[in-house]
Amino acid sequence: MLDKTNHHMTSAEFREAGREVVDWIADYYDWIEKYPVVPDIEPGDIRKNLPAHPPEKGESFDAMMQDVDQIIMPGITHWQSPNFFAYFPSNTTFPSILGEMISAGLGVQGMVWKTSPACTELETHMMDWMVELLGLPPRFLSSGKGGGVIQDTASSAVLCAMLAARERVTARQSNKTGTPSNLVAYTSTQAHSSVQKAARIAGIGDDRIRLIDVDATFAMNPTALEKAIQEDRLAGLVPFFVSATVGTTSSMAMDDIYSISKVLDDSIWLHVDAAMAGSAAVCPEFRGMHDGVEMADSYCFNPHKWLFTNFDCNCFFVADREALINALSILPEYLRTPEHAAGAIDYRDWQVPLGRRFRALKLWFVVRHYGSKGLQTHVRQHIELAKEFESWVSKSNQFQLVTRRSLNTVCFAHRKGNDATERILQKVNATGKLFASHTKLGDQYTIRMVIGGHNTKHRHVLAAWDHFCSMAEEVVPQ
Amino acid sequence: MLDKTNHHMTSAEFREAGREVVDWIADYYDWIEKYPVVPDIEPGDIRKNLPAHPPEKGESFDAMMQDVDQIIMPGITHWQSPNFFAYFPSNTTFPSILGEMISAGLGVQGMVWKTSPACTELETHMMDWMVELLGLPPRFLSSGKGGGVIQDTASSAVLCAMLAARERVTARQSNKTGTPSNLVAYTSTQAHSSVQKAARIAGIGDDRIRLIDVDATFAMNPTALEKAIQEDRLAGLVPFFVSATVGTTSSMAMDDIYSISKVLDDSIWLHVDAAMAGSAAVCPEFRGMHDGVEMADSYCFNPHKWLFTNFDCNCFFVADREALINALSILPEYLRTPEHAAGAIDYRDWQVPLGRRFRALKLWFVVRHYGSKGLQTHVRQHIELAKEFESWVSKSNQFQLVTRRSLNTVCFAHRKGNDATERILQKVNATGKLFASHTKLGDQYTIRMVIGGHNTKHRHVLAAWDHFCSMAEEVVPQ
Repeated sequence: MLDKTNHHMTSAEFREAGREVVDWIADYYDWIEKYPVVPDIEPGDIRKNLPAHPPEKGESFDAMMQDVDQIIMPGITHWQSPNFFAYFPSNTTFPSILGEMISAGLGVQGMVWKTSPACTELETHMMDWMVELLGLPPRFLSSGKGGGVIQDTASSAVLCAMLAARERVTARQSNKTGTPSNLVAYTSTQAHSSVQKAARIAGIGDDRIRLIDVDATFAMNPTALEKAIQEDRLAGLVPFFVSATVGTTSSMAMDDIYSISKVLDDSIWLHVDAAMAGSAAVCPEFRGMHDGVEMADSYCFNPHKWLFTNFDCNCFFVADREALINALSILPEYLRTPEHAAGAIDYRDWQVPLGRRFRALKLWFVVRHYGSKGLQTHVRQHIELAKEFESWVSKSNQFQLVTRRSLNTVCFAHRKGNDATERILQKVNATGKLFASHTKLGDQYTIRMVIGGHNTKHRHVLAAWDHFCSMAEEVVPQ
Repeated sequence: MLDKTNHHMTSAEFREAGREVVDWIADYYDWIEKYPVVPDIEPGDIRKNLPAHPPEKGESFDAMMQDVDQIIMPGITHWQSPNFFAYFPSNTTFPSILGEMISAGLGVQGMVWKTSPACTELETHMMDWMVELLGLPPRFLSSGKGGGVIQDTASSAVLCAMLAARERVTARQSNKTGTPSNLVAYTSTQAHSSVQKAARIAGIGDDRIRLIDVDATFAMNPTALEKAIQEDRLAGLVPFFVSATVGTTSSMAMDDIYSISKVLDDSIWLHVDAAMAGSAAVCPEFRGMHDGVEMADSYCFNPHKWLFTNFDCNCFFVADREALINALSILPEYLRTPEHAAGAIDYRDWQVPLGRRFRALKLWFVVRHYGSKGLQTHVRQHIELAKEFESWVSKSNQFQLVTRRSLNTVCFAHRKGNDATERILQKVNATGKLFASHTKLGDQYTIRMVIGGHNTKHRHVLAAWDHFCSMAEEVVPQ
């Protein structure tokens, strides 16, 4: 099909190959349930089928697609399977894929306004839409002092927040003289490891990040936070950053942002990580989890988790964009463009990398395809399914809840304890019929059932429960 | 076309919409020359055409595509235009777009081996292929102690390199106790701003990064570097990191890696940033620029610049992967997976973010589509075109070279000085017929002509030269 002598795929050839790939993707979703959710392979099994050396001459598109099917697909963990209940979901959807295709086709760089104005302006506009969609406080709107930006992940968002806080608390000295050795950051024992990773990167270090105790619901204890801050101040240290979590990674626990904000003064930057849970705020009835976010300096959530937009798409908001830009802009004033001076946003100054692709397109496609009503429908369905799963667990003679359900996440364990629970989970996952992952809550080995896949329906959740129950009967002596 | 009541695009609808998008992309490339390369708009011109509020009800795909054409396209700077000669190129190509489509379709997460083994293994394999394709030293192969990983950008790569260096020089104490206040990093005055940004992020600070003088070719002066290191040591400071540049952003100047390495001892991490120039090493005749890279601790280049793979795709190599993992792994030993213990790579420990998408697919598609011979052909064509452009400048009565051509980059200026040069460039760019950008070399305002667009042919370069010459006649009194 391809003329390999000119080393260039023509647009006519691309039309044909592109249609094949579109059909390949559609076929994948039509048949996704036929694959084991997790492949049964060992490290090295994929590489051994790949040629040791790159080709000298170009190969045909057909040969490449054949290898996708025969070499790559046997090594895929199917995150988009309706039977994927592990970790947190990383949803993609057809409208999102279409947006990503256009972004790849245009191939523009959005590091400053001028390098593709539409890339920057659509992104700012989508971030403002998100404030409205999630009912977030107006301080995060670009029309005021705040604003939003798309980061790759919540890890990068918390790093940027911490850098902004570091620069603010040192009155813009830390970028010049280095990270002072007296700054202290706080988060809970249940927070995502990215907070600690950010503290390492930013030169704070493990010794000056406090992992605050949690209460019975695995939410940060604000009194313990207040006490830790007081102790550090008495020791001559400078508390500067708190990361609260709305929907922890282990059990979707909800830190009480309002109570946390009450023990902080203005010198401490409050970041809110709602990476997974935030999307639920498209439904007004779940917005209570955000109470107090109007006191936060920054906030983020991941449409690439539960708002059906393919990775990477983290929405990161700040109340004071100048604080962020002060921390991350590398340019002296005289190098700023006229458009920047006129108020145009240069997003390179809002993130760690310089380059950036046109990620707002896919988010725009998703929001427009579903509308707020459609997004609500999907989120509510997942939470209803989780409620039903919770009811099955609570009526079970074999299993019990480890903590109360939160949104779409049910944490449960076998009544006979950790060994039984672990064996059941491993054997259920080994069937390939579903994939769930585990955590430890206190000392308890816990199965996490997270229902957030775009294609997950009632029958998949019911089948998963049946698998857990019959495996329990098989491996745990009654 | 779409049934908007079920809030879900069916696979049949996706097949139809996907074909439309494929044709839209192909049409874009068929007609790309009809657009002004840079749009003539003001900040806010795009946003004012977007609805203030997100829709409640889902909209049709046709409405979305209509808005792409009518609202987005007038705000695009056309990086893929054959008349784009600004900054450095950010190439995409049809095979790369096809790979990105499959990646978006699969929607897998590659943070650890288990979460999609093929994502990790194809990436490791591609990085090994790149070592062979570019003739890089075997120390960067995964079969030894080293290995490669795809980062989003060279900015992130240099940050990771600096973090690995910081942790190594402190005997694994900086992650625990914070960045010590005695570490010093070095790069040249011509290095990319990302080195300084990394030093800020990592808690080093501007006061402890030395921007070393360059020689007449704008390459780092190794003697000046040696002197700076000695002075810092005498002052009780600890030199720990040097970033050398192969192909500087301003003028594609080549630091002499070998001479630089000779003034360093093993306690100093040598990073080599070949973001733009590295791709030229697919041609054996250009590999001299890499002399000495066998002494480097890390190296990176960007296939998303000049190896026809769409953003983001930075290939980052380390000679000692344990040094990188020690700096970036957040997990205690007992949480590592059995597969990790068995030698599987968990790429979350090689980067700042946790999540990561399947970026190796597009690189695989590009290398297989072109083969090493095809990649060489395109790179050689660009360099031949730059040579020809250089010959026109050197014969010109109006313009002159500011420094010698390096690879595909020609730096030139009007003979009447900065004001004339700046006016000519601004007016040429305002025509929309091409886009070139400027730099300052010493005090000289300089036009950079970078010929690296995949679709750029002889006629485009010739037309650009004609535009410069006739604009010079128009705006500069003879």
